[in-house]
Amino acid sequence: MFLAVAILLPIPFSLYYADGGYVFFLIASGITLVSGFLFFKLTRMDQEVHAREAFAIVTLAWVLFSLFGSLPFLLSGAIPNFTNAFFETMSGFTTTGATILEDIEVMPQGLLFWRSLTHWLGGMGIIVLSIAILPILGVGGMQLFKAEAPGPAPDKLTPRVMETAKILWGIYVLISALETVLLMAGGMTFFDALCHTFGTMATGGFSTKNASIGYYASPYIQYVIIVFMILAGTSFSLHYKFLKKKFDCYRKNHEFNFFMLLIGGGMLFIGFNTFRHHFPRLETAFRTTLFQVVSILTTTGFGTADYEQWSATSQFILFIFMFIGGCAGSTGGGMKVIRLVILLQFVRAEVKRLLHPSAVIPVRIGDKVIPRDIVTNVLGFQALMLGLFILGVILMSIVGLDLVSAFGSVAATLGNIGPGLGSVGPTDNYAHIPVFGKWALTFFMLAGRLEIYTVLILFASAFWRK
Amino acid sequence: MFLAVAILLPIPFSLYYADGGYVFFLIASGITLVSGFLFFKLTRMDQEVHAREAFAIVTLAWVLFSLFGSLPFLLSGAIPNFTNAFFETMSGFTTTGATILEDIEVMPQGLLFWRSLTHWLGGMGIIVLSIAILPILGVGGMQLFKAEAPGPAPDKLTPRVMETAKILWGIYVLISALETVLLMAGGMTFFDALCHTFGTMATGGFSTKNASIGYYASPYIQYVIIVFMILAGTSFSLHYKFLKKKFDCYRKNHEFNFFMLLIGGGMLFIGFNTFRHHFPRLETAFRTTLFQVVSILTTTGFGTADYEQWSATSQFILFIFMFIGGCAGSTGGGMKVIRLVILLQFVRAEVKRLLHPSAVIPVRIGDKVIPRDIVTNVLGFQALMLGLFILGVILMSIVGLDLVSAFGSVAATLGNIGPGLGSVGPTDNYAHIPVFGKWALTFFMLAGRLEIYTVLILFASAFWRK
Repeated sequence: MFLAVAILLPIPFSLYYADGGYVFFLIASGITLVSGFLFFKLTRMDQEVHAREAFAIVTLAWVLFSLFGSLPFLLSGAIPNFTNAFFETMSGFTTTGATILEDIEVMPQGLLFWRSLTHWLGGMGIIVLSIAILPILGVGGMQLFKAEAPGPAPDKLTPRVMETAKILWGIYVLISALETVLLMAGGMTFFDALCHTFGTMATGGFSTKNASIGYYASPYIQYVIIVFMILAGTSFSLHYKFLKKKFDCYRKNHEFNFFMLLIGGGMLFIGFNTFRHHFPRLETAFRTTLFQVVSILTTTGFGTADYEQWSATSQFILFIFMFIGGCAGSTGGGMKVIRLVILLQFVRAEVKRLLHPSAVIPVRIGDKVIPRDIVTNVLGFQALMLGLFILGVILMSIVGLDLVSAFGSVAATLGNIGPGLGSVGPTDNYAHIPVFGKWALTFFMLAGRLEIYTVLILFASAFWRK
Repeated sequence: MFLAVAILLPIPFSLYYADGGYVFFLIASGITLVSGFLFFKLTRMDQEVHAREAFAIVTLAWVLFSLFGSLPFLLSGAIPNFTNAFFETMSGFTTTGATILEDIEVMPQGLLFWRSLTHWLGGMGIIVLSIAILPILGVGGMQLFKAEAPGPAPDKLTPRVMETAKILWGIYVLISALETVLLMAGGMTFFDALCHTFGTMATGGFSTKNASIGYYASPYIQYVIIVFMILAGTSFSLHYKFLKKKFDCYRKNHEFNFFMLLIGGGMLFIGFNTFRHHFPRLETAFRTTLFQVVSILTTTGFGTADYEQWSATSQFILFIFMFIGGCAGSTGGGMKVIRLVILLQFVRAEVKRLLHPSAVIPVRIGDKVIPRDIVTNVLGFQALMLGLFILGVILMSIVGLDLVSAFGSVAATLGNIGPGLGSVGPTDNYAHIPVFGKWALTFFMLAGRLEIYTVLILFASAFWRK
C-alpha cells in the first residue's frame, strides 16, 4: 500500500512534460493498492516476528516491490517484455543501476522519474535494513553494529525499528534535498536534479541521459555528485552522530578512514595511468579518475568516462572495488569496507599466531577487539560471496557470455554497481543478455543487496523445517 | 651436498646420448658441493629447531636448491639468462612446470633429464613437508593431519621427521618405478618414461616433447598417466595405509571422495562441451576431457589438447580447478581439496546458525567435528591466497599482460600448475614475460608451493623481532 502511493508520485512530472503516461501510473497504483489490501487482510498476524520470518519478509518485500513496481513499465508498453521490466525494476529497488534500456532519452519523463525513484525507495529500505535489522539478525558479522543504530537500543526486532527508521529517513531526506538544490544551482532542471539525486543517494546509478553524468560537462556538477556519492557510501549512523554535533566522528571512524584510503589509493594507481594516456589537463584527469573510482567503490555506477579504454591494471582495480563496496550502514553495496578491514586484520593476526603458537592473538580494529564469532561470520560472508560469484560466472558463461563479460556482469550485479566489463561495460547495457541470464543476474542483484544470507537462507532445507 | 649428488645423476644420460654436456654437471656439482660444505661448517648448530627457524629453513632450502640447481642450465649456455634459468629451476623444484623454453626438443638430453629430475626431487620435499612438517607448524589448518603421518608420532620437529620421510620416500619411489615400467610397456624409451614419471609423480608437468603428452597418440600411455596423476594428487598417507592392507582406505576418506567428485563433476560439465564441439569419437572426447581435468586439478599441467579452444565455461571451470588443487599430503598444489571441503561445510554451518542463533553448530566432515581453530586457519589461508592472487594480477597487469593472461599466469604459478590462460596458455610459454614479471611469478610459485604462510611470514616484522 506504501508502494501504491509511491507509484502516484511520477504523475505530476508526467503531466508537466505531457508525456501522456499518467494514466498508467493510476492503473498500476490501483492494482498495487488492491493487491496490497488483500495481502494485508490475508496475512495479518499479531505474532512476534522471529529471525526465520524476518528473512522471508525482507526478501519477499524486495521481490513484491519489483513485481508491482514493474507495472508502469509494462502497462505503458515502454518495456513490453516482462523479464526486462522486472530486471529494470529490481535493478532500481536493489540500487544496482544495471539497465536493459538501449536509449534512455526516448523514455517518457514520468517513467524516467519512476525508474529513478525506485532507487531512492530501495535506498530507504537498505539503510534501515543494514542499521536496524541485519545487526539484530546477525548476518555476516553485522551484529558488530548492534549498538550503532540511532534511537532507542533495539533489543527486539519489531517494536523499536520504526523509531530508528524515522531518524535515518530524516537524514536521508535532508541530504537528498541538499543535493537537489546544489545540482539545480549548477544548472540542472528540477526534474534532472531530483532524478540524479535519487541515483546518487541510493548509490544506484540510473541517469536520465544516455551519456550518464558525462552529459554534464560542468566540473561543478561532477564534483557535487562525487561528494554526495561519498556521503551515500558512508554509514548513516555517522551522519546522525555528525548532526548530533560530534563533528570529529568521521575522522575517528576506522571504517571511514579506510574507505578514504581506498579512494586515495585507487586515485593514485589509476590516476597515474589516466593522466599519462588520456588527459592533457591535470584537473580533468584528476576529476575523471576520482569520479570513476568513487562511483565504482560506492557501487553507484554513474559514469563520466569509458574506463574500458583504460589500462588492464586500472580496470582490474575497479573490478576489485566492485566487490568491496561502501561502508556498512550506507546505501552502498559490495562486501562493505568494514568486512575488508576485519579480513586484513584477521590475516595479520594469523601470521602472528604462527610465530607465537601458544599466544592468544585477538583481531583488533584500533583499540577495539573484534569478537571471534564476528570474525568467523565475516570470513563466512566473504567465502559465500566468492562462491556465489564463481557460480554466477559459470552460469553466465553457459548462457553464452565471454569470460570478461561474465566476470563483469556478475560482479556488477552481485555488488549492486550497474555497469560492468566487456559487453556490459559503461557504454553498453544488459539488453543483449539472454532471458535465463537476465533472471540469474536479477537473482544476484537481490542476493547481493540483501547481504546474500538473507536470500540464500530461503534455499536451505533447514529453513523450511518446523 | 645432497643436491651436489643429485646434479651428477643426469651424467649417464648425457654420455649415452653423447650431448657433450656431462662436464657442466661435474662443474655444477663441484660448486654446489663446496658451497654446501662451507654452509654446513658456517651454520651448524646443535640447537633445537623452533617454528621460526623452521619457516626460514624450508623457504631457504627451496631458494638455494633453485639457485644451485640452475647452474647446469647456465654453465652449458642452454639457458644463458639468469632470470630464465632461475625461473625454470624454481618451476621444477616447486613442481609447477611453467617453462620459458620455446623449443624443448632442441635441448640436450642431459639437461632435459635434470629439468625433470628437479620436479621429482621437489615432490620428495613436498610430501615430507606437507605430511610431517607443516602439520606440526600449524600452517593454514594442516594441524588437522598431525596424526596422519606414518611412522612414530611426531611430537617434536626434528627427531622423528626422518623416520616418516623414509617411509614416504619408499612409497614415492615404488609408485614411480611402477609408472616408469608401465610407460615403457607402452613404447616409451627408458629416458622418456623416467622423465614423464618425474613430471607425473611430482604433479609437475615438464615434458621432453613440445606437444607434451599430446606427442603420444597412444590411448594406453594417456590412461596410464591419468591414473598416476590421480595417485600423485592423493595423500601419500592413504597410499601408506593401502600398502598396510587397509584396502578400503580410499573409499572411506572424505577428501579423496570429494576429489573424485570434482573430477567427475568437471568431466560432466566440460565433457558435454568437448564432445559436442571438438570430438567425433566418444572415447577420444572422454579421454581428452578426463586428461585435462585431472592434469589441471592435480596441478600437473601435462596437456593432450589446447583447452583454450574450448568454451568459456570449460575454461572457467579449469581456472577454478587451478585454485583447488590436489589432496593434502600429495604432491599436488593449490589450496587442497580438504580446505575446500572444510570451507563448504563451514558455510553450511553458518547458514544453520542464522536460523538457530542460540545453538552451537560445529563444522563436521563425516562424523568428525573440525575444531574451530582449524576452521579459522583454513579461512585465513583462503583469504590470504585470494589476496595474493589479487596482488599478483595487479603486478602482472602493470608489467603489461592483458587481464586474461594476468589471471592465468598468476593462477598457474600460485597453484603450481604450469600452463595458464591467454598468452601463457597450454600452447604457449613464459618466455615473453618481462624480467620483473618472471621474478614475481617465481615468487608466486614458491609461495604457492610452501602453503603461502611459510614464505610470507618472512616478510612479517614480528618474524625478525627477538
